[in-house]
Amino acid sequence: MRQAVDLPKAYRLLNHGPTVLVSAAHAGQRNVMAAAWAMPLDFDPPKVVVVIDKSTYTRGLVEASGHFVLNVPCRNFADASFTVGSVSGRDMGDSDKFARYGLASFAGSVVGAPLLEGCVAWLECKLLPEPHNQQRYDLFIGEVLAASADDRVFSNGRWHFSAEHDGLRTIHHVAGGAFVIAGDTVQAQLLPG
Amino acid sequence: MRQAVDLPKAYRLLNHGPTVLVSAAHAGQRNVMAAAWAMPLDFDPPKVVVVIDKSTYTRGLVEASGHFVLNVPCRNFADASFTVGSVSGRDMGDSDKFARYGLASFAGSVVGAPLLEGCVAWLECKLLPEPHNQQRYDLFIGEVLAASADDRVFSNGRWHFSAEHDGLRTIHHVAGGAFVIAGDTVQAQLLPG
Repeated sequence: MRQAVDLPKAYRLLNHGPTVLVSAAHAGQRNVMAAAWAMPLDFDPPKVVVVIDKSTYTRGLVEASGHFVLNVPCRNFADASFTVGSVSGRDMGDSDKFARYGLASFAGSVVGAPLLEGCVAWLECKLLPEPHNQQRYDLFIGEVLAASADDRVFSNGRWHFSAEHDGLRTIHHVAGGAFVIAGDTVQAQLLPG
Repeated sequence: MRQAVDLPKAYRLLNHGPTVLVSAAHAGQRNVMAAAWAMPLDFDPPKVVVVIDKSTYTRGLVEASGHFVLNVPCRNFADASFTVGSVSGRDMGDSDKFARYGLASFAGSVVGAPLLEGCVAWLECKLLPEPHNQQRYDLFIGEVLAASADDRVFSNGRWHFSAEHDGLRTIHHVAGGAFVIAGDTVQAQLLPG
């Protein structure tokens, strides 16, 4: 079940480095793309950074609307993630990636961009414009306004992947549609010294 | 065995979001810290970004030397990673974290910062100064000048974690010394549409 995540804990949704899907909408258009290059940037208020190439259709929607969503996909969503990362939403005529691939979405609590069903966490973000970073590095900074996660794998501020929900493990792109799957968790100990 | 990684493939060492250890050295001082907030920023020439808090001793060494190394630790190195991320190198007198915790290091091929034995990949980086990002966001950008990896788990431009080398899986910090371990790899398929 989807549960709200307290904003000071929202960074933990990305702290372990999952691949994300960036969704955005503006003036009746919507799109979603994959991004392996996303990470937290600050705790409270939570900020994130994500690299969005100049060639992408999503980028224009982010810049025009000033908002985006980082959706965190899981193993069950690997094919869809690879697909939305492999095709452009630019030349779909009256259709879009959601319609073409049967991807269900729902409305967020703050931003207008669609949140994807079948993902395990969602971060609704407001763009913090930094023109130099966007132009030179394709680097976009956002403040997280709302966050939520599937409580079968994230609760009390922690991911807890297990065999019981194997399909809900986060995915971490290597290259060409090959994803490393999040494994189990180990607790490290401080060395004496 | 440690093997050089072609620079255009160096981004793949970080693409799946592992926690890294940032090492730096200047004027006879050296240090290493943990950073979960690091990611690729460009392919060729490869660039990376990493968040380095103002309170860290490492930050001054990076700024003074203009170089740093991102070491990618593995499960066998989880306790050491948690430890160097939990203590400051600032107040160790004549000692440092390497000496206190028995961490062996070796020289890189380009930069003066030490590379950590027991890690599974290494990216030697030159700081690309961006004062606004560093001051406002603690965000540091580097160009990767040399990269290498342990060929038991990374070769031909790909990570290939397996039960055979369970201790060499990368680690992905959640919070408080809890790390998600990199699992196996799945190959996604494009959806019809």
